[in-house]
Amino acid sequence: MANQFTRRNLLRKGAMAGLGMAVGSVVGGRLKGAAFGHGLFAKSHPQASAFPKGRPTAEDATRYSASMIGYNPGAKDLIKVGFVGIGNQGSGHVNNLLKIEGCQITAVCDIRPERVKWAQRQITRAGFPDPKGYTKGDLDFERMCAEEDLDLVYNAAPWRWHAPICLSAMQNGKHAASEVNIALSVEDCWKLIETSEKTRKHCVMQENCCYDLTEMVVLNMVRQGLFGEIMHGECGYLHDLRGLKINPTFYQGMWRAHQSLKRNGNLYPTHGIGPMAWCMDINRGDAFDTLVSMSTKSIGLNEFADKKYTEAKTQEDKKFYSEWQNRKYALGDVNITLIKTKLGKTIICKHDTNLPRPYSRDFLVQGSKGLVRKYPTEMIYIEGLSRGHGWEDLKDYSEKYEHPVWKATREQAKGAGHGGMDFIEDYRLITALRKGVSPDIDVYDSTAWSVIIPLSEQSIAEGSSPVKFPDFTHGKWNQPRQLGVSTWFA
Amino acid sequence: MANQFTRRNLLRKGAMAGLGMAVGSVVGGRLKGAAFGHGLFAKSHPQASAFPKGRPTAEDATRYSASMIGYNPGAKDLIKVGFVGIGNQGSGHVNNLLKIEGCQITAVCDIRPERVKWAQRQITRAGFPDPKGYTKGDLDFERMCAEEDLDLVYNAAPWRWHAPICLSAMQNGKHAASEVNIALSVEDCWKLIETSEKTRKHCVMQENCCYDLTEMVVLNMVRQGLFGEIMHGECGYLHDLRGLKINPTFYQGMWRAHQSLKRNGNLYPTHGIGPMAWCMDINRGDAFDTLVSMSTKSIGLNEFADKKYTEAKTQEDKKFYSEWQNRKYALGDVNITLIKTKLGKTIICKHDTNLPRPYSRDFLVQGSKGLVRKYPTEMIYIEGLSRGHGWEDLKDYSEKYEHPVWKATREQAKGAGHGGMDFIEDYRLITALRKGVSPDIDVYDSTAWSVIIPLSEQSIAEGSSPVKFPDFTHGKWNQPRQLGVSTWFA
Repeated sequence: MANQFTRRNLLRKGAMAGLGMAVGSVVGGRLKGAAFGHGLFAKSHPQASAFPKGRPTAEDATRYSASMIGYNPGAKDLIKVGFVGIGNQGSGHVNNLLKIEGCQITAVCDIRPERVKWAQRQITRAGFPDPKGYTKGDLDFERMCAEEDLDLVYNAAPWRWHAPICLSAMQNGKHAASEVNIALSVEDCWKLIETSEKTRKHCVMQENCCYDLTEMVVLNMVRQGLFGEIMHGECGYLHDLRGLKINPTFYQGMWRAHQSLKRNGNLYPTHGIGPMAWCMDINRGDAFDTLVSMSTKSIGLNEFADKKYTEAKTQEDKKFYSEWQNRKYALGDVNITLIKTKLGKTIICKHDTNLPRPYSRDFLVQGSKGLVRKYPTEMIYIEGLSRGHGWEDLKDYSEKYEHPVWKATREQAKGAGHGGMDFIEDYRLITALRKGVSPDIDVYDSTAWSVIIPLSEQSIAEGSSPVKFPDFTHGKWNQPRQLGVSTWFA
Repeated sequence: MANQFTRRNLLRKGAMAGLGMAVGSVVGGRLKGAAFGHGLFAKSHPQASAFPKGRPTAEDATRYSASMIGYNPGAKDLIKVGFVGIGNQGSGHVNNLLKIEGCQITAVCDIRPERVKWAQRQITRAGFPDPKGYTKGDLDFERMCAEEDLDLVYNAAPWRWHAPICLSAMQNGKHAASEVNIALSVEDCWKLIETSEKTRKHCVMQENCCYDLTEMVVLNMVRQGLFGEIMHGECGYLHDLRGLKINPTFYQGMWRAHQSLKRNGNLYPTHGIGPMAWCMDINRGDAFDTLVSMSTKSIGLNEFADKKYTEAKTQEDKKFYSEWQNRKYALGDVNITLIKTKLGKTIICKHDTNLPRPYSRDFLVQGSKGLVRKYPTEMIYIEGLSRGHGWEDLKDYSEKYEHPVWKATREQAKGAGHGGMDFIEDYRLITALRKGVSPDIDVYDSTAWSVIIPLSEQSIAEGSSPVKFPDFTHGKWNQPRQLGVSTWFA
């Protein structure tokens, strides 16, 4: 593509990149491309406009261009973790980490002192030394990153903080991991790439659904060629969150409702796109090329608050729901994003969190020899194996194709969050760092998956126009390589 | 939208319109819009560039602007039908028409004399006079339209002939009906609109899936408000046609394989979009506004021909498959088209005919109070009715919500094609003409549904860019009105 801005171009124009200007690429003869500084929160934190500063030196440029693909930081027996954000998912991760060999949480950080105390209690009860607590406001994670001797800073903070915390961690010589999306803007994705490459620290998005039992069975079948060449996939996050979004306590400061007020796009693509990227060898021979996105109008949260207001029995509840009843939510109730890969595969990725419905991730993988689906039922069809043209129950294949990672970890994972997958993702991360191998989901995967958020917003803002994906791998996407889950199991 | 070309603009530029020039509309600041003369076959027939001729008179303009919405041509006891194209679906329709009260097939046309003889035999065996046969080549339908005294010309010819046959019928004072899509180009859609309005003859796309049992149950539930405000729908045509496309006899002249060679888009949207349009009040208060379309690459038909070549046991078969083995097919194996309506609803419409898979139309209707799906299982969730957040079996609702049209016709429909829906669609068409009421699917529906074919091709050719729908209703789409199936039942 002519005029495609690469990371290298950006570095040459480093000072400009820091200003959050629009960067375009020519798509089909028309100016399109990812807008930098598009994320609503990109400038909410001092990190956002502070990097890169000025024109990098020749030495910098050489260092930057060293890819983190397969980077091995060296084995280490004990991984010391600083944990930031001890809310719904954070609490689960803290409990998981306590059970993983060679892992110790030595610092904990949350703006709520009571959550830090809760974590300290859990940690000491498990027989570990009392970790230091950080509770002095929104930016206290920076002090933790600067002062503590840590291998990894793992955060499950509200979305807007993921990139700033990861940047601070790496800049202070720690690996970084984030519960789901790693960034909300194209600009922050590039900063994470640059910082990881410069500091030689891994930057990992933790996507639990990659490790779900069925998704891993499907991945195993894909790897064994049962579906032939993979052609099309469907996935998403379809979860009635109305009662959690319009809720004074569930998401700290109601951050998720505020995201729905301000952003229209696929705000939570990674539960679907993570497993799909693994099935499609994204960044390992193929790459996301273009997306288009379309949203319905928004009525779900208004109708929900209306209903709750009518049903409210206390003045306090009436007051609360009346505040959320007539707001204008930017987020369309159903968002559909279509992605095309460089090798000509297509993906439907859905986001549907404002309407009453059963939970689903609408997972489907289709190839030249058959297809498989999860939600509402798990079904499979393989030409030549399945009778006639009919679906079969996936259960008849599940045991035979159980993924080796599940076989190796299922006992330890029992009782952990979301059917065990939350434990497995934490086990895989800590164990990769102990072994000194690259984590399953590296900085290129994390950014490629997360960048769907700002690109889908951009597409919608431009009337569902196609938007090109940046190439965060600097052209290395087309080099075939194995997934971590295909190379080591325990 | 500035510069949106309307039918009226076109009429003013009538001579230009006849030249098949590109007509654009400004979408989001960029030039987009439906390209006229885009259909591959738009110029394959003399009708295609012959209308409208020159600048219409003031009298013409007045006549043209008379909408066909709700147009009542007057009751008539006997409907005389000329049938064109007696292949796979055509044969079924001939048999259906023989069973419908007040209907007589008085002429039959096919380029294959043996198919005309077959139809004549069926008709005389049923006790009707021998209909006149027309077998003198591709254009003999024109002679039939000119010479015969008919009320309706009904065709189930290959796609490329649908618009020319309908135009010829109306120009000769007959109503026109076509098995599925009514046209393959935007230009032909406009010609059908203009001709129908000018001649005061109905032009009907026959879409059997509108009348399928489950789709009509769902429609009935939608009408009764069970799903609240409809927000999103999914539908499509997912049918492994490899063995029918790459087949020397099934589709006459292998026309469907030739379509796959030449066109990339959603080539068969109406089985899905017809029932969806009914659920969403398209042209009855809402309208399709914009689409984007994306296709995978094409490997399915090549792999199929490869396999058949390898398995072939005769030299004749070897020769046949070798001819289809290495051709370059334009049609992507999976096409996904996203449509947004003017009132902010979204639709996913799929086309998937080149890969091994179970049959599906992936039908789903989602509203602010719940959703329902068909394929692979029929499930429903209604907030407040369904327990917890779980799906229920649609069967538990099907009897209660059986559509009155099914109640009225199910006995007569028994044993007819595709579970009875093919009979019901024919019964509804003939009975509407006998009653003198507007057919269930009028010329505005027929064109709005069919135009997805050329618009999806255009979107794909432009890198999945958004394309605006033409407004075939001349602004009348936003006038609420009842569906035919909601107003009379037998």
